[in-house]
Amino acid sequence: MNPTGRYPATVYLGAPDMIRLVRRKGLSACIAGVATRIEREFLRWQAFDKSARVACHSAVGVIELMPIADDRQFAFKYVNGHPNNHRHGLPTVMAFGVLADVETGAPRLLCELTLTTAIRTAAMSAVAARALARPDSRVMALIGNGAQSEFQAIAFRDLVGIRELRLFDADPAASAKLAANVVGQGLKVRTFESIAEAVRGADIVTTVTAAKTQATILTPEMIEPGMHINAVGGDCPGKTELHRGVLEAGPVFVEFEPQTRLEGDIQQMPADFPVTELWQVLAGQASGRTGASQVTVFDSVGFALEDYAALAFMGETAAELGIGERMQFVPEADDPKNLFGVLRDEAAAPARAARGAVVTA
Amino acid sequence: MNPTGRYPATVYLGAPDMIRLVRRKGLSACIAGVATRIEREFLRWQAFDKSARVACHSAVGVIELMPIADDRQFAFKYVNGHPNNHRHGLPTVMAFGVLADVETGAPRLLCELTLTTAIRTAAMSAVAARALARPDSRVMALIGNGAQSEFQAIAFRDLVGIRELRLFDADPAASAKLAANVVGQGLKVRTFESIAEAVRGADIVTTVTAAKTQATILTPEMIEPGMHINAVGGDCPGKTELHRGVLEAGPVFVEFEPQTRLEGDIQQMPADFPVTELWQVLAGQASGRTGASQVTVFDSVGFALEDYAALAFMGETAAELGIGERMQFVPEADDPKNLFGVLRDEAAAPARAARGAVVTA
Repeated sequence: MNPTGRYPATVYLGAPDMIRLVRRKGLSACIAGVATRIEREFLRWQAFDKSARVACHSAVGVIELMPIADDRQFAFKYVNGHPNNHRHGLPTVMAFGVLADVETGAPRLLCELTLTTAIRTAAMSAVAARALARPDSRVMALIGNGAQSEFQAIAFRDLVGIRELRLFDADPAASAKLAANVVGQGLKVRTFESIAEAVRGADIVTTVTAAKTQATILTPEMIEPGMHINAVGGDCPGKTELHRGVLEAGPVFVEFEPQTRLEGDIQQMPADFPVTELWQVLAGQASGRTGASQVTVFDSVGFALEDYAALAFMGETAAELGIGERMQFVPEADDPKNLFGVLRDEAAAPARAARGAVVTA
Repeated sequence: MNPTGRYPATVYLGAPDMIRLVRRKGLSACIAGVATRIEREFLRWQAFDKSARVACHSAVGVIELMPIADDRQFAFKYVNGHPNNHRHGLPTVMAFGVLADVETGAPRLLCELTLTTAIRTAAMSAVAARALARPDSRVMALIGNGAQSEFQAIAFRDLVGIRELRLFDADPAASAKLAANVVGQGLKVRTFESIAEAVRGADIVTTVTAAKTQATILTPEMIEPGMHINAVGGDCPGKTELHRGVLEAGPVFVEFEPQTRLEGDIQQMPADFPVTELWQVLAGQASGRTGASQVTVFDSVGFALEDYAALAFMGETAAELGIGERMQFVPEADDPKNLFGVLRDEAAAPARAARGAVVTA
């Protein structure tokens, strides 16, 4: 028996809720909170049932489902990647996700993840850079100045200590937008007309381009000793950003190796090309950077565990701020074996009468 | 540019909406509509990008994601299976799903699928029985009288011509509930104390039990010449209902072979055990039943294409009846490359100012 309204609630956080949440909590606090949560979950790596995401490719883009679970919660994200969506006036990436109880399968949180993905991707990049970049890194080149770029800028300012951005985008309006968005926020910003110029002298190079092609955004001659490469945009089969020589310039770190072999920049490399999973570095089980002049590469594709962490953080923050609404996602039957009963008028339900309930007209 | 409110709408059909939709359209019309749609989509089998579902198993249940797409629409279902959920006052199966545009990745429909799964599973069973059972079938044994059972009863009455039900459930209250629910609906109902008695003389035997075990609901000595076995409950690894001798009694038909090999009753059989995909029978490319005394078996596990069909039917019916609400699932930026801009007060947004918009205090 379970009276109406007694099922575990599903909380819905739509786009307006999430905008309100991030404004009230503060973007910096959200990025830092998600970063802390990502680190915590990465240290529990073995506790998760992990699988490469399921991708459905078309000529114009990809739609993916990214599931993960531990013994308490199941999470998944729906996310697309359609580089030409701006022609439809739509974002390249749109996403939402769900947290559910493993014990019962009941969905507990349905959450927009478009804005949240931008936050978690930047948080993940910063977590990796904290472990892999030179501690005195202050200058970052940002190649690709689209929807994700400001979030990278803020995350690296707050969590890594970046104070100067060197911008490049094939669309100068995108760089102008980024520069305008971060005015007065403690970041010196310069825009360049070529990738090579933008990259010159940077401590960290972040690539976040969107084209679904085998692009060569970074070539070996651009790479300087001590650089950390944060390669975010090469994240599905046929979509890469780094010349293979860049991958050979230093140790390569990945999120979840089986997924990155398919989707990351290392898809260009032989199957035995050596990589290290980042969680091992965070856990002290593998070396990260071993010297100031070493080049390090984070071949990031985005892994379900980051969304698990972000969903958990957003769900907790929404509860703390009183944001979000309850959805009735599951029909509530008096008797869960009597789903059919929800279709009847309560007053006339024979099944209830048969169990001796009082029937009133 | 895309002013607020101009993104393609995502329609939300929650549980109360779906109950209203099914009451207004009528359960029989919904089952028939979904059955028609399933047949239509099964005839387009080659047009779909199919994959076995992604399952996350725990000691107490399973949570699954079931994606599928053609060149126009992507669909997925979230569904759990937790046989002991009644102890928490929750249904064994809870589900929801999404339809999205392949062209842009935009989600267009978010829909409860708990009630809808009951409808589509019954519709699928009836579609298979119409192709495989003897046309003069009038008596159905229904083994397992839980949440799915009434939907099977109504579907087989409407679409197959069943006029008499022979019930068995380990829990007599479940049979009493089913009997009460279908009173006065043109079905003669008898309840039995053993499976063997319930099955005796039936034209069709439907098994819809929930236990996540290698059960042996039907054994070879219960099977009579000419029977059609509609095995619905054996649908994940370690969860079966049929003795292997039942599977050897006649040709076995399945939805999507790679998935059924893992999840269906045929998981007990060698990898080369012969099966026929049902779409081939519907398309006239393979034989179904070849004689009145033949035994036929539909080893049903539930396939994503059935949910695609059900989502499409429910979305169209909701539009026709004016049911459902619009969600704002994706943050609407004036410029899709300026996601960061949604976090600013419009009046103070430097990025807009930089593009020459009038700034007012």
